[in-house]
Amino acid sequence: MPDTYVLVHGAWHTGAEIEAVAEVMREAGHTVLCPTVAGNRPGDDRATTGLAQAIDSIVAFIEEKNLSNVRLAGHSYGGMVISGVADRIAARLKRLVYINAFVPLDGESLNDMVPPHYVAMFDAIAGAGNNAVNLPFEIWRDAFINDADMVTAQAAYAKLNPHPYATFTDKIKLSQPLAALALGKSYVNCQQDIALPHSMPWHPRLSERLGLFRLVECPGSHEMFFSNPKRLAQAILEAGRD
Amino acid sequence: MPDTYVLVHGAWHTGAEIEAVAEVMREAGHTVLCPTVAGNRPGDDRATTGLAQAIDSIVAFIEEKNLSNVRLAGHSYGGMVISGVADRIAARLKRLVYINAFVPLDGESLNDMVPPHYVAMFDAIAGAGNNAVNLPFEIWRDAFINDADMVTAQAAYAKLNPHPYATFTDKIKLSQPLAALALGKSYVNCQQDIALPHSMPWHPRLSERLGLFRLVECPGSHEMFFSNPKRLAQAILEAGRD
Amino acid sequence: MPDTYVLVHGAWHTGAEIEAVAEVMREAGHTVLCPTVAGNRPGDDRATTGLAQAIDSIVAFIEEKNLSNVRLAGHSYGGMVISGVADRIAARLKRLVYINAFVPLDGESLNDMVPPHYVAMFDAIAGAGNNAVNLPFEIWRDAFINDADMVTAQAAYAKLNPHPYATFTDKIKLSQPLAALALGKSYVNCQQDIALPHSMPWHPRLSERLGLFRLVECPGSHEMFFSNPKRLAQAILEAGRD
Repeated sequence: MPDTYVLVHGAWHTGAEIEAVAEVMREAGHTVLCPTVAGNRPGDDRATTGLAQAIDSIVAFIEEKNLSNVRLAGHSYGGMVISGVADRIAARLKRLVYINAFVPLDGESLNDMVPPHYVAMFDAIAGAGNNAVNLPFEIWRDAFINDADMVTAQAAYAKLNPHPYATFTDKIKLSQPLAALALGKSYVNCQQDIALPHSMPWHPRLSERLGLFRLVECPGSHEMFFSNPKRLAQAILEAGRD
Repeated sequence: MPDTYVLVHGAWHTGAEIEAVAEVMREAGHTVLCPTVAGNRPGDDRATTGLAQAIDSIVAFIEEKNLSNVRLAGHSYGGMVISGVADRIAARLKRLVYINAFVPLDGESLNDMVPPHYVAMFDAIAGAGNNAVNLPFEIWRDAFINDADMVTAQAAYAKLNPHPYATFTDKIKLSQPLAALALGKSYVNCQQDIALPHSMPWHPRLSERLGLFRLVECPGSHEMFFSNPKRLAQAILEAGRD
Repeated sequence: MPDTYVLVHGAWHTGAEIEAVAEVMREAGHTVLCPTVAGNRPGDDRATTGLAQAIDSIVAFIEEKNLSNVRLAGHSYGGMVISGVADRIAARLKRLVYINAFVPLDGESLNDMVPPHYVAMFDAIAGAGNNAVNLPFEIWRDAFINDADMVTAQAAYAKLNPHPYATFTDKIKLSQPLAALALGKSYVNCQQDIALPHSMPWHPRLSERLGLFRLVECPGSHEMFFSNPKRLAQAILEAGRD
């Protein structure tokens, strides 16, 4: 049975960078939409866009299209966004799918879940760059897209856009714990993802905040959207199905 | 060289549900027996059957058939059973194979090794149901058989039988630590098994209680007997061989 | 583009035992050299050879051949050796590749990173055997080469040579933390490697001492040089490339 998916990209990305995954999912018969979150669109103000606006933009996207029974997936920073969306319009959703994504508690920011040395680095970059952040290439190459060759790593890096840092530092407001939401929940864990160090990992540290959830794992890095879109699409479909 | 295997099923199962795995192992030339443990057979009294009776039934099975050099494998709750059997008739055994199975210390119950919220849930179910327990479908689907599609999950669920709760609460008696038994020991870890949460996992938390043991891992959930019997059979053979 | 690799074997091995992996890497176009570390060569004095001599021998090997841009890989104990080499001749190196290898801090010995029961066992074996150590076959079979069949396990075991124990007990001298070296760093983690117990694992416990590093994982045991050289060669190439 065809399902409706909304895929929410991570920091530095737009919806365009996850089209390769979406296309594989569409070939399996599903409707897959890849909006770009406010703050990452061309022309958005990187200096001022915050987490609330980012969440608002995806709520508006789903409401304007009048979608229902949505399988809402978020990658990395996208976990902050879908968590806020689910807290607002759970009635339109069927299941949440976190893809090596942040799972916040009420009052937490993304930065509250990452190692202190990353926060210090981003603070410095944002301070020097009008409150927008970039990811240094050497971190991207070895810790984000460790499963790709250099050509793929460079080509993907060239597509990234500066990210509005307020979305990393803003605290999210949730009316109840995500575990309490009456929705299906899944977590896709790409096993060689060391964007967060494995001593402070995505799974089970963040995944288990979902309460009862379905685990799906696949080999790959944080950036399988570039390095292995076909395998990632399969994992998302196994996570999103009933 | 053909080996003799006895496979001991988990809670809510009977020997019939592991026949698909046994059949693959037989095709490789081995003798594979799948007895049903006392308490899970049709007509057994779910209200009163305890762990000692469960263990007795497998000891009797092996003795009546006069088996020797047995590779004795247990899945999940079956780990309690094979641990008790090994303590009684080690001379008839060659190697123990735990398949995402409980590895008890002397005086421990199965419930001593599971998260408190599961114990509370089972206490409530047993209290309402004549001391037998069932597993709610939503837990089965997302935490036990997360690697299967819905049709497989439902078909497998329909085969489960109510489980005698005393076998979860009875303390096992072991004359010595399992690590001290002069038998080979192996642990098969299905990597996406979140029947126990990965923050409180099967491996290495329970596997390392075996002392020197052989680790074999394969992708899959707690219920690969249904979702991928062929791959599980391969893992059991790699765990059970000399 | 062809790269130059130097592969440093683990304890009890010589360069000959990693030729099968090197051959696969050469077929991909690379230059791959497999020197035998001082202490493991025929005729070396097992009673007296220490860690400094082991390191010296690989420094000399690289200097005598006047190698540059070397991708220097070490397996297990070989991690001690390549760490010392990198501290001495970083200018000749491009990237360090640790393959389930020890990553020492300044002043640490290999024994400082292994479980106490292994240290006690090796102390006893060395005390009884002129300060050289062997690995008991049952540990080799179940904890080192758990992914192989018995024939492979026995054939590989027959090739091992007594290891000079001083290289396990000598403290390494490093002029700076490995994380501070201006070299690329990668860690290959063979996922079923329980030569170190998973409660005290290679990765992330030791890998994260490298600071920013690239993680590459593959299924297999500590001894994939024997059990699956082709797959290991692929992992080393993914770890060693730019």
